[in-house]
Amino acid sequence: MPPLALTLGDPAGIGPELALSAWLGRGGADPLPPFFLVGDPAFIERLANRLGRLVPVAEVDPETAAEVFPRALPVVPLPSGALVAAAPGVPDTANAGATIESITAAVAFVKAGRASAVVTNPIAKFVLTRTGFAHPGHTEFLAALAVPPGRTPPRPVMMIWSEGLSVVPVTIHVPLKDVPELLTQELVEETATIVARDLREKFGLPEPRLVLAGLNPHAGEAGTIGHEDRDVLAPAVARLRAAGIDIRGPLPADTLFHARARATYDVALAPTHDQALIPIKTIAFDDGVNVTLGLPFVRTSPDHGTAFDIAGQGIARPDSLVAALRLAARLAANAADRAETLGGEVVPFSVYAGRPRPAGARHFDPEDEL
Amino acid sequence: MPPLALTLGDPAGIGPELALSAWLGRGGADPLPPFFLVGDPAFIERLANRLGRLVPVAEVDPETAAEVFPRALPVVPLPSGALVAAAPGVPDTANAGATIESITAAVAFVKAGRASAVVTNPIAKFVLTRTGFAHPGHTEFLAALAVPPGRTPPRPVMMIWSEGLSVVPVTIHVPLKDVPELLTQELVEETATIVARDLREKFGLPEPRLVLAGLNPHAGEAGTIGHEDRDVLAPAVARLRAAGIDIRGPLPADTLFHARARATYDVALAPTHDQALIPIKTIAFDDGVNVTLGLPFVRTSPDHGTAFDIAGQGIARPDSLVAALRLAARLAANAADRAETLGGEVVPFSVYAGRPRPAGARHFDPEDEL
Repeated sequence: MPPLALTLGDPAGIGPELALSAWLGRGGADPLPPFFLVGDPAFIERLANRLGRLVPVAEVDPETAAEVFPRALPVVPLPSGALVAAAPGVPDTANAGATIESITAAVAFVKAGRASAVVTNPIAKFVLTRTGFAHPGHTEFLAALAVPPGRTPPRPVMMIWSEGLSVVPVTIHVPLKDVPELLTQELVEETATIVARDLREKFGLPEPRLVLAGLNPHAGEAGTIGHEDRDVLAPAVARLRAAGIDIRGPLPADTLFHARARATYDVALAPTHDQALIPIKTIAFDDGVNVTLGLPFVRTSPDHGTAFDIAGQGIARPDSLVAALRLAARLAANAADRAETLGGEVVPFSVYAGRPRPAGARHFDPEDEL
Repeated sequence: MPPLALTLGDPAGIGPELALSAWLGRGGADPLPPFFLVGDPAFIERLANRLGRLVPVAEVDPETAAEVFPRALPVVPLPSGALVAAAPGVPDTANAGATIESITAAVAFVKAGRASAVVTNPIAKFVLTRTGFAHPGHTEFLAALAVPPGRTPPRPVMMIWSEGLSVVPVTIHVPLKDVPELLTQELVEETATIVARDLREKFGLPEPRLVLAGLNPHAGEAGTIGHEDRDVLAPAVARLRAAGIDIRGPLPADTLFHARARATYDVALAPTHDQALIPIKTIAFDDGVNVTLGLPFVRTSPDHGTAFDIAGQGIARPDSLVAALRLAARLAANAADRAETLGGEVVPFSVYAGRPRPAGARHFDPEDEL
């Protein structure tokens, strides 16, 4: 399997130093999958020196990265040969070109089969937009790169994954007051369909179990607290079930995320950003992974931002990037397995190891709480 | 200190059997504080027999309950002498009178100094409303009972408490689409003021540390995702701080509830029901306690409903009721201490044992996430 392509992210943020930290922890009982960083090797070398990290940096192409990985951090130069002179902690539009080029190159590598997945370091949108970057966000940019110019990109769906809980916010960075109107039956159905398909195809779960949290408190208590759960979400769930997707809901959001409840599903969809992100950041703050579903390739990302305030200090924790690299490799291996068994039976590759589907609901069924 | 008064709750729900379970677990290394149930002793005796529980039931008045408590479950009859003939699991309007009378009697006992606090078992509002009960809920009924008839009741504030996290939803059982309009600066200020006062007066925290979660994702990112965080919540926080209340916010809700963040505050207020209830039910599903702030007496309650579906089977877990009894006793003892030191220095009685205020913010400050 080809190595993973890791983007530079904003070079003034913590991304590049996290790459150094991750590489330093590559060995041990559970070695990291080989990856290469797409950026300016000299910049990475200077950063390692500045931080006093003993990281040999090797300028490579994707084909030699895996071989080099055990003894040096492989860095594939930007195709234009652009150099990076970012000062840690100082956002600067002068870095925007390299940030963007690293992403486009990484996607080109994965599309050409020269990398098995894209792992992206965090970017700062405000830096890019000042230089004319017109995409709503990192993920939408990746979706646009997935198709030839001018073609309609696939709809990307953000899932936050951790070993014990995966969540999908159905709406994301929108004002709360707009959510009831944005939350259409069509949006819910489209989102759940993409999630169910990618849990089968990338996560290797033959029958993924989805749940949908309600919009209103207690999922609306049969229409007495807001009508959307009864009139929008319930019909969407009925149609999805009729289409063969194992989804339950809408269920009260507050009782959906404790340990016994989590054992009853593989992923929880929630109408609002906070309903989905609160539980996973409460229990897996350091090692949640952002996975983009709906793309024709595997893309993961650490679940944090550029953290300019601590960049260059060497104190940023690489846990989430390490988890993102590991998950990307598992998903890519699974996709490769699946491709090899085309026409045959797909071997399930569960990333939900340790979360056996319980034989019965024991003493808990979230629907009791309705 | 007088014993705790425990209400019957809906006698067809799990409340009465939880009282039996709690009493059976009264001894051991950390004995339960004495309590008496307000209800029909014969009904409780029949229930114990039906469940095969070896619980002697003693008909008492509040003054003899504590003495009896080690060897029998003390039950104070309903003042009217009403009997209860509820069938477990079968909600019945015939039980509404006893349910309501148990609450009014418990409040009368605490107001008369014959009980130190009120602990309420769960009721089913739909049963009561069919018989003309006109209060919006259990808590509002208690607030009405706190004052003489015809007087304006105090505004009760619901806090869900657990050993590691306490939360207050600023709005509760309302449709999500109504929250942005209901969430006024006045409501936030009034709620936070009541919370701060009761954390001082009942919880004995001399300088309670409050945080306020934002309404919109990422607390609105400086007004770019919804205006309410900037225009309503931030001014409310500024006014509260000017009034001497230690409150920070609005902070992004999703990064406010993991372990390092929780160590930086005593209570988190959140605009919506789910923002507050999701994190506490995720980490303390079985032993959260509902505490009503703003009342002139201590009232706690288990954080679950009547659970008619499992009533009478003996499988309901008493964890939350036990936690509610313990917390009620701690708050009542603290209030008593405070009363004894009137004019002197109030001895702090921290229910946050094990949650020392950190000397510095270490590597985490939720404001970083803005």
